[in-house]
Amino acid sequence: MALTDVPEIVVRRLPLYLRALTALAESNHLVTSSQELAARLGISSAQIRKDLSYFGEFGKQGMGYEVPYLRDQLRRILQADRHWSMVLVGAGDLGHAIVNYASFKRWDYEIVAIFDNDPAKIGRKLGGLTIRPADELESAVRELGVQIGIIAVPAAQAQAVAERLIRGGVRAILNYAPVSLNLPSDVRVHSIDPVVGLQSMTYYLNPSS
Amino acid sequence: MALTDVPEIVVRRLPLYLRALTALAESNHLVTSSQELAARLGISSAQIRKDLSYFGEFGKQGMGYEVPYLRDQLRRILQADRHWSMVLVGAGDLGHAIVNYASFKRWDYEIVAIFDNDPAKIGRKLGGLTIRPADELESAVRELGVQIGIIAVPAAQAQAVAERLIRGGVRAILNYAPVSLNLPSDVRVHSIDPVVGLQSMTYYLNPSS
Repeated sequence: MALTDVPEIVVRRLPLYLRALTALAESNHLVTSSQELAARLGISSAQIRKDLSYFGEFGKQGMGYEVPYLRDQLRRILQADRHWSMVLVGAGDLGHAIVNYASFKRWDYEIVAIFDNDPAKIGRKLGGLTIRPADELESAVRELGVQIGIIAVPAAQAQAVAERLIRGGVRAILNYAPVSLNLPSDVRVHSIDPVVGLQSMTYYLNPSS
Repeated sequence: MALTDVPEIVVRRLPLYLRALTALAESNHLVTSSQELAARLGISSAQIRKDLSYFGEFGKQGMGYEVPYLRDQLRRILQADRHWSMVLVGAGDLGHAIVNYASFKRWDYEIVAIFDNDPAKIGRKLGGLTIRPADELESAVRELGVQIGIIAVPAAQAQAVAERLIRGGVRAILNYAPVSLNLPSDVRVHSIDPVVGLQSMTYYLNPSS
């Protein structure tokens, strides 16, 4: 099946399946079922079966799924079984937290270059890397052949940084800046803004307390 | 309109509208249109108009929206116009980054208590607060009357922590632990796992570079 035939909403759920399967494998579960995954994930078992069926026949009728096998297949499908290089733009508090985020290392995502436009930060070390001037962004991204960029700059600068990353060859952006990016449709963006998450929850909360 | 009549997917988009309107207001834009918002957000103007129509008639035909007015209405609808107290569980690297996250302060989300189960951390100061033993979680949440909990503990502990927060009265959880939580349907969860975001993007990337 061509990559583009799978709905994006399905692709967005696959990492949740992989995460659950990885946890099951780590606790020595050898077999699971769409029902067990459903209970763990809060996604219906029918949805899980349908999502997986885009990629092949992974379970045996009445036998469930072999955990390590399905995990490995999802790792392959998501290209999570290989090393990825990333560049980080923004070496402030948030940038520091991102550099030290343990899950990136565990999953073989490596930050290979860090950029900032603050002369006071340029030349300093962060996570074993020397912070480079933002001027070098496009050329460095191109030289390094990096496809993933992380944006941790103030909102007002994020769109311009994203465009420069893309000109350098980046095709996937993890956006920590609290702003929506307006980018070509062939560039993937995943935005992380905890305030957006909080606001969509406080809508439902009791106003009186 | 009753709160529950609005589809959750609509509620999840409202904070993006609010964020864009706040930026427009800060740059002294007084009027906007669903088309301008659409271009900023990558959401169709028809969708934006439809989403807003759940809550009233905010624009005038052919006149667009008054930016400060629509911003204030969205703040009210999302209850983003008031102070919210939150408790944080987990005082590791991630917990430190969360305490120092500037956007929470800007939007009047205040962490009022921090918990950890590590004796080496308990009693230490973090963000002006003394880290408290995780044993006190339920009673402290109840005493403080807090409805929002932030989970920044390892994946294996997150479900148990969430259940204890809920027993204390929490109704909204911002979950930084890389695991899906299985919670009662009246509890809201927003999960932040950058690896899940990266994996849903690497699916689309060129495998050769």
